[in-house]
Amino acid sequence: MSGKTELVQNVIGRKVPVQVNGNPQIPFKGLGQHLPNGRKAAPPVRSASSYPSDGDKRVTDIRTALEKCGLKSGMTISSHHHFRNGDFIALETLQTAGKIGVKDLLWFPSASFPCQAPVVDLMEQGVVHHIEGSMNGPLGDYCSRGKMKGLGVLRSHGGRWQAIQDGEVHINIAVIAAPTADPFGNCDGSHGPSACGSLGFALADSIYADHVIVVTDNLVPFPCVPWQIQGNNVDYVVEVEQVGDPSQIVSGTTEITRSPERLRIAQFVATLLRDAGIMKNGFSFQAGAGGIALAFVGFLKEMMRQNGVKARFVRGGSTSYLVDLLNEGLTDYILDGQTFDLAGVAGIGSNPRHLATSPFTSYNHHGKGNFASMVDAVVLGATEVDVNFNANVVTHSDGRLLHGIGGWQNCLHSRCTILAIPSFRDRIPVIVDQVTTLTGPGELIDVIATERGIAVNPRRSDLLDALQGSKLPIRPIREIKAEVERFCGGAPRKPDLTQDPVAVIKWVDGTVLDTVFQVKDRAV
Amino acid sequence: MSGKTELVQNVIGRKVPVQVNGNPQIPFKGLGQHLPNGRKAAPPVRSASSYPSDGDKRVTDIRTALEKCGLKSGMTISSHHHFRNGDFIALETLQTAGKIGVKDLLWFPSASFPCQAPVVDLMEQGVVHHIEGSMNGPLGDYCSRGKMKGLGVLRSHGGRWQAIQDGEVHINIAVIAAPTADPFGNCDGSHGPSACGSLGFALADSIYADHVIVVTDNLVPFPCVPWQIQGNNVDYVVEVEQVGDPSQIVSGTTEITRSPERLRIAQFVATLLRDAGIMKNGFSFQAGAGGIALAFVGFLKEMMRQNGVKARFVRGGSTSYLVDLLNEGLTDYILDGQTFDLAGVAGIGSNPRHLATSPFTSYNHHGKGNFASMVDAVVLGATEVDVNFNANVVTHSDGRLLHGIGGWQNCLHSRCTILAIPSFRDRIPVIVDQVTTLTGPGELIDVIATERGIAVNPRRSDLLDALQGSKLPIRPIREIKAEVERFCGGAPRKPDLTQDPVAVIKWVDGTVLDTVFQVKDRAV
Repeated sequence: MSGKTELVQNVIGRKVPVQVNGNPQIPFKGLGQHLPNGRKAAPPVRSASSYPSDGDKRVTDIRTALEKCGLKSGMTISSHHHFRNGDFIALETLQTAGKIGVKDLLWFPSASFPCQAPVVDLMEQGVVHHIEGSMNGPLGDYCSRGKMKGLGVLRSHGGRWQAIQDGEVHINIAVIAAPTADPFGNCDGSHGPSACGSLGFALADSIYADHVIVVTDNLVPFPCVPWQIQGNNVDYVVEVEQVGDPSQIVSGTTEITRSPERLRIAQFVATLLRDAGIMKNGFSFQAGAGGIALAFVGFLKEMMRQNGVKARFVRGGSTSYLVDLLNEGLTDYILDGQTFDLAGVAGIGSNPRHLATSPFTSYNHHGKGNFASMVDAVVLGATEVDVNFNANVVTHSDGRLLHGIGGWQNCLHSRCTILAIPSFRDRIPVIVDQVTTLTGPGELIDVIATERGIAVNPRRSDLLDALQGSKLPIRPIREIKAEVERFCGGAPRKPDLTQDPVAVIKWVDGTVLDTVFQVKDRAV
Repeated sequence: MSGKTELVQNVIGRKVPVQVNGNPQIPFKGLGQHLPNGRKAAPPVRSASSYPSDGDKRVTDIRTALEKCGLKSGMTISSHHHFRNGDFIALETLQTAGKIGVKDLLWFPSASFPCQAPVVDLMEQGVVHHIEGSMNGPLGDYCSRGKMKGLGVLRSHGGRWQAIQDGEVHINIAVIAAPTADPFGNCDGSHGPSACGSLGFALADSIYADHVIVVTDNLVPFPCVPWQIQGNNVDYVVEVEQVGDPSQIVSGTTEITRSPERLRIAQFVATLLRDAGIMKNGFSFQAGAGGIALAFVGFLKEMMRQNGVKARFVRGGSTSYLVDLLNEGLTDYILDGQTFDLAGVAGIGSNPRHLATSPFTSYNHHGKGNFASMVDAVVLGATEVDVNFNANVVTHSDGRLLHGIGGWQNCLHSRCTILAIPSFRDRIPVIVDQVTTLTGPGELIDVIATERGIAVNPRRSDLLDALQGSKLPIRPIREIKAEVERFCGGAPRKPDLTQDPVAVIKWVDGTVLDTVFQVKDRAV
C-alpha cells in the first residue's frame, strides 16, 4: 500500500482510514445511527433496438465479449463465488483481460478462493490493481503482507448489495458463470452439469452493472426456467466447455463434527433454543455448513420431533440436513442463500418450498427491512471473541486476513445470535480482551457457546430470565476466559502488526467498522 | 383541457403536442430511431433501521398508510389492474385521499375499468387532476369529451415500465392490491380467495415508487411464497375484508366465438401459421382472450396434434385453452402476463411450467431486449386498420377513446404479427384510408386477416413466398376494402373532432406516436 493513510477513531474505538482507494469514507457511527439520504445507483437506459431481435446474444468467447463491452484499464470487473473453490471463469476473465493488455482493474468478486491464487501474478503484473471482496486463503495472505496496490474492502453479502445499490461500487462489466442459460441471457444455478443451486450473489451485478456477460456450459433453448438472472439485463452470452469443477462446487462431503467437544457445543446450542422457548411452532433458524452447525441441526431436529414442533422456515447455506427437515415436514420452507451440498442443489432445483433468495431479500440493510432480522435464532462461528461479546471472523490470531465476512454480519441481526465456538484452537484461547479485527459489535451478539460453558450477553436479561431453570452451564464470559487461559498457559500473544492498513471492514450500512493492518515480515 | 397546446407533425405525419402536462415530449422518430442516453430512475435509499425489525409492517387502514407515506396534493398514486372490473382498492384509495383533503393527484393505473367510473366525481371535485393509463369505457369517454384537467397519456404495458424506469413518471405512492401477502409485504397473485394470477403489472411500481402500500385480504405468516412483489420494497401492509370481486377478477366464462364469420377468420389464421411453416417444432405464439383468438388456439391445437408439432412456449393472457395445451404436452411453457380465467389462475399457482412474467421481461423496450420480439406469431385485434397496415386499438370510429393499448404495441414486435378482425362492425367498415388514431405503425403489422380474405403486408415478400401454394384467400388490402365498402354502402364517416388534444399515444420508446382529439358535442 503506497502512501500514508490518515486514520481516525470511530465510535467503537477502532482506527479507520478517512479515505479508501481514493473514496471518502464514513467511520462507523453505532448501530442504526447512519441513515442514508441518497438515491440508488442508476444504470444506463438501453434500447431493445440495440440488441438482436431474435434474442440470440451469443458471441464466440470471453475475449470477444469483454472487447464488445469496451473493456478499458481501470475498470471494475465483478464475479460471483457460487462455484467456490471450483470456479473456472473469474480467473480466466482476468487473465483474458491481461492478454488484451488492460491494467489496474478493480476485481470485485462476491468472494475469492484458493483456486484464484494466480490473481497474485496478475496483481504483480499490474493487470489487477486490487480486490474488493472476501479473500479466502492465499489472496488474503497476499493482502496481509501489504503487497496489494489498493486497500482491500471486505463487505458482508448484504453490504456488497448495499455498496452496489448505493453506487459506492460501480461495476463496469459483470461476468456471471451460469450452470444453465439461454441465448437471451436468462440463467440459473439449479440445473446443469455444473449446478450450484442459487445464483443470488450475482443478482445485484446483473441489475446495476453497465455491461453483463453470461458464461455457461449448458445452453438451453429460450426460455431458461427458472431465470434467477434475467436476460433483459444481459449483453452477451458465451458458451464454454466447463464453468467449474463440480467436485469443488459443492463439497459433497459436508459432515457433522466428530469431536466430542464440538458435539457438546452443538448440543448446548440446541438445548438453549429449546429451554429458552425459541424452539416453538412457527419458529425459524439459520445454521451454516460448519461441523458444529450441522451437528446442532441434528440435535435440534431430534428435539423438534420429540416436542412435536415445526419451523416456519429455516435459512441456508443449505445442506442435506436442512433438506431432510423439509422433506420430513419439520419446516414449511428453506430460504436458501447458497447451496453447500448435492442434496441442497437437488432440493433447490425441484422442491418449490426450497427457495433461492438473494442478498437483497435476505441481507441488504439499505432496503425496507430484510429477512435476517426476522430469524429467531442463528448459529455462527468466529475466529475470536472478546469479553464484550465483540467478534472477529476475518483475521487469525497471527493477524493474517484469511476469511471473508459472508452473511455473518447480516445474520447478527437475528433475534438471538449465537456464536458456537471452541474455547481454544491449537492451544490458543479464542476468548480475548480485545479482538484483533472487529467484524461484529458485541451489542448484536447474544450468546457465546463453548464446550466449557455458555456466556449470555448481560444485555439480554430477557434471555437469562427465559433460561432460569435450564441445566445448561451458563457462566460469565470472563470466568470461561480465565479457565481457558489457565488451561492454555496464558492469554494469546498479540499479533505483530505494522501501522499500515491493508484492508477495511465495512459495516452493513457502508460505514467503516475496523481496519486490517499489515503483518510484520517475521510474523508471516 | 385548459390552454392551447402547440402541435408538431411527427415522422409518420401525425400531429402531436410538444408538451404534455408540463413535460416536454419527443415526437415519434420512426422505428428504432430514438435511442435513449440517460440513466434509469433512482429510488431513494432506505435503511432497515427505519423499519420494524420483526418485519411486521401492518397498519390499520388505507388512510393511515397514505398519511404515513406523507400523501400531499399533486402527488402521483399508482395502482394495477389485475382485478380488472372487480377491483375494490384503487377507487377506495383515491376516495380516501379525497377525504384526507388532498387535490390534483395524478392517478397512474396500469389500466382503469368501468368499476372505477366514480373517479369522474373525484376529477370533478379536483381530487384527481388527470389519469395517465389505459381508460376502458366511461373514463375514456370522459377524457374524450375534453373534461379532464390534464392530457391523458396512453402507454403500452411495456411503455408503462419504460416510463417508470426512465423517470418520465415518478410514482410517489404505489398501492398494490394483493390476493396473498405477509406482514413484511411480500405478496403474490396466484393464491387466496381473490387470486388473480400474476401481479406483474405492479412490479415496476414496487421497485421505483418512493412509497409502497400492500393491501390484502389474505394475510399469511412470513414468508408469502412465491413473492412476485418483494417486501423489501414495501413500506406498509393493510388488511381489508376483500380486495376485489372474484366473479369480476376473471371472466370465468371466456368463450370461443360462435359467429361463423369470426370462426372463419380464426381458421384462416391457424392455417396461415401452418402453411407458412411457422407452426413447427419449438415454435412460439401469443393469443389473447378474445373470441377469435380463442377459436384460433382451438384450430391451431388440432393442427399441432395432426402434425405432431410441439411449441416451446406460448404467451398469455392465459386461459383454459392455453392451460390445456400445456397439460397435453403441446407446449413446454406458458409465459403469462395476466390471467383471464380460473384455469389460468389454477395453472399459474400450481404448475412450475406456467410462469408469471412481468412487463420488464416481456415488453420493456428500454431493456437489453425483451421476450416480445422472440415470439414467432402473435394474433391481435384492432378497432381500425388502414391501407398501409397502420392500426388503431384505442378509439372507435366515432373518435371516442374507449380502450387501452395493453401489450398490443409490444406484441407488434413478434416475428409475424397478425391482426384478426372482422371486415366491418355494425355495418361500419374496419379497413379505412387512414386510421382515426395511429396506435401501431404498419411496418410492424404483417397480416390482416378478415372473413373476406387475408392481406399480407407487401413488405413481407418472404411470407408471401412461404404461402405460395396455400389455398388461403390472400388478397390485396385495397381489394378487400373496396368489397367491404360496396357491402356497407361506402367508406365510414370521419369522426367529428375538434382540434383540441385530450390524450396522447406513446410509442414503446416513450416518443409520441399520435394524439387523441376531443369529440364534438354532437358526436357524443
